Amino acid sequence: MEGGSVVQLFLALGLIIGAAQLAGSAARSVGQPRVFGELLAGVFLGPTLLNLLHWGIFDNPEMLGHTIKELAELGVLFLMFAVGLEVHLPELLSVGKVAILGGTLGAVLPLVASIPIVAPFGYSVETAIFVGVVMSATSVSISAQTLLELGVLRTKEGVGLLAMAVADDILAILLVSIVIATLGPNTEAASVGELLWIFVRMMLYLAGALLVAWFVLPRLFAWLHRRTQFTQSMAAFALIAALLFGWSAEVLGGVAAITGAFITGMGLSRTTERIRHQIENAVRPISYSFLVPIFFVNVGLQTDLTSIGGDMIPLAILLLVVAVVTKVVGCGFGARLGGFTSGESLRVGVCMISRGEVGLIIASLLLSAGMLEQRLFEPVFLVILLTTVITPPLVRLVFRNYPTAIDPGPPRTARDTAAEV
Amino acid sequence: MEGGSVVQLFLALGLIIGAAQLAGSAARSVGQPRVFGELLAGVFLGPTLLNLLHWGIFDNPEMLGHTIKELAELGVLFLMFAVGLEVHLPELLSVGKVAILGGTLGAVLPLVASIPIVAPFGYSVETAIFVGVVMSATSVSISAQTLLELGVLRTKEGVGLLAMAVADDILAILLVSIVIATLGPNTEAASVGELLWIFVRMMLYLAGALLVAWFVLPRLFAWLHRRTQFTQSMAAFALIAALLFGWSAEVLGGVAAITGAFITGMGLSRTTERIRHQIENAVRPISYSFLVPIFFVNVGLQTDLTSIGGDMIPLAILLLVVAVVTKVVGCGFGARLGGFTSGESLRVGVCMISRGEVGLIIASLLLSAGMLEQRLFEPVFLVILLTTVITPPLVRLVFRNYPTAIDPGPPRTARDTAAEV
Repeated sequence: MEGGSVVQLFLALGLIIGAAQLAGSAARSVGQPRVFGELLAGVFLGPTLLNLLHWGIFDNPEMLGHTIKELAELGVLFLMFAVGLEVHLPELLSVGKVAILGGTLGAVLPLVASIPIVAPFGYSVETAIFVGVVMSATSVSISAQTLLELGVLRTKEGVGLLAMAVADDILAILLVSIVIATLGPNTEAASVGELLWIFVRMMLYLAGALLVAWFVLPRLFAWLHRRTQFTQSMAAFALIAALLFGWSAEVLGGVAAITGAFITGMGLSRTTERIRHQIENAVRPISYSFLVPIFFVNVGLQTDLTSIGGDMIPLAILLLVVAVVTKVVGCGFGARLGGFTSGESLRVGVCMISRGEVGLIIASLLLSAGMLEQRLFEPVFLVILLTTVITPPLVRLVFRNYPTAIDPGPPRTARDTAAEV
Repeated sequence: MEGGSVVQLFLALGLIIGAAQLAGSAARSVGQPRVFGELLAGVFLGPTLLNLLHWGIFDNPEMLGHTIKELAELGVLFLMFAVGLEVHLPELLSVGKVAILGGTLGAVLPLVASIPIVAPFGYSVETAIFVGVVMSATSVSISAQTLLELGVLRTKEGVGLLAMAVADDILAILLVSIVIATLGPNTEAASVGELLWIFVRMMLYLAGALLVAWFVLPRLFAWLHRRTQFTQSMAAFALIAALLFGWSAEVLGGVAAITGAFITGMGLSRTTERIRHQIENAVRPISYSFLVPIFFVNVGLQTDLTSIGGDMIPLAILLLVVAVVTKVVGCGFGARLGGFTSGESLRVGVCMISRGEVGLIIASLLLSAGMLEQRLFEPVFLVILLTTVITPPLVRLVFRNYPTAIDPGPPRTARDTAAEV
């Protein structure tokens, strides 16, 4: 009958989830985390190689890509909610010093180091700073997923990563706001007072959201559980809370939506065992068998590695090296100053390498504001993708001999354990 | 940061799933099926009352509505997959005679009876036939969900409904093809041979899909289960199968996508206990706590009851009465002829009343083909909505004293039982 876009979405999702499953299993069989294979599946299906969405059977690639992107965003929201469920706030606060020092150094160092790399390629210092701001970002989702798979999310390093990523999120958003306000095309836009207000608003939101999540959500859910008999209701209410906290994080607080979802998860980790089980038993399949693979594949779907100018390759290589080294050194040194051992500092630094969707969002923002030209955007994009793809194997490498890590050999995996009831 | 459409989707989904939960619970507390409340929540949130998607906070209602509609379609796809998991093919074939007789009479009677209702309102016989074709449709999803909630899906009536709905789906599509070919604006389009080909193609597809689902899928999944260790993989593969069968049903077979998903579920109901549990434990939360409520709410989101012309109200009322009576009588009499008792025939007839999304699709198709004018589309739309909303309470009524029905009083419900492991 009618046919059209909906069944085309079914086909595209079938192929995307299928490719993610196959590539994930292939990655596992060579000892790598599944997420590494899922990211590569995206590059394979994307414009770089197969260009899935532009096949003749899909008559509206833009609309289809839009829907897939929104499913991907739902995926990363629920993923960070699931990560939050595994973490307790006191743990997070116990690494506050590490988070602030590591988050700051890990954002400032890549920014500063990008300037002498980009400027010699014929760009102004301002433009070099814009690239630096992109490099200051960190995407927590890919490392969090990898640590979950390896069974080491609730270690000192795992909690350090989560706390440091929140600090980095705040800093990266502040840096973007500052450069747009001071160096952007509409420089009359913002004053020091306005920048201060952005910061104060973030802090107010985070404090408010944490208080509501910590004190109100567990009581609310206990009350709802007494009132409703339908088994799937607790899960539905958890999704509703994650969606509304995610929305409010961006709209009220000016922080990333995933930060709001993460806070929701932390709050709900305090409910009763029974409610938490009902929530986990629903959020895991929704995330891991449906939406999260779409998120990882979508990173590659958005990238065209073939369009990059040949003369930009040296810049991309230099920038990649600097992006990796400065993040590891910056975050690692900050963690060391905050009291982590050298080993712990190295591991948490490696976890922070991935720029993922946060880097993509900042780069796209600067592109559409006319502050990054398309030719320069492409190598930056490549570096973001590469930092994202290499993070899971690197994380696996530094956690190789970790005492409590589960060896991810071919038999049953850590992610299984984590994903089982 | 960036903000925009994605967080607006989060907000809209949070409100939609939230309204569905509250209305579902309210419906339960007055002894009605949850799905009844969820349908009313959609009317409440839709253009008839609150007009959610056009609130000032949403800056692109069309795009947002499009994404929500696609999530809704995913919801009904997975819902019918879940229904298929509960049914065995031999059961379905055992009511083949009932399905063919009831499906045919239940499609022809509403069509014929609509003509003397619509024509006196100043419309041509052709136009009246177009309205009749819309009325010949049946949406199985709402009744299937209601029977699942009441714990009576796997009864003679429940299986009869599912088989009859497949027959009705085939007939309704054939009728639409015939009227478009013979009475539509491009009458040169189709010959008898082409119509025959549409029918043959459907039959070939259904036979092929059933064979693949029945013989190949269980073996394939057993093989996949031996090869993959990741717990969520079986669920992911089940979703992939449902998506690809759904796509192929429309594109290869010309039947509804949900028929393909239903066949997938029937095939996978034959796998091992362990695999089926893994699939059910994933598909239930994805469907019932996330996507299916979006589907039910979306029916109301698409409907504006206030735009209907005052002079069309008598037509709508007459058409509603005829639509309900002819479906119950047609399907019921067919079932009786096929060997059901009078009680069974009445119950299965009532289950067939809902026109739901199938009626909407046909009506929209005829509207966009210029065969239904907007003024006439609106009362037809209202009748579709009303047949859909009244079906769950009517089904509940006729199953009231059913021996194996679980009384859906305020304590733990049948849907709980069905939804629990």
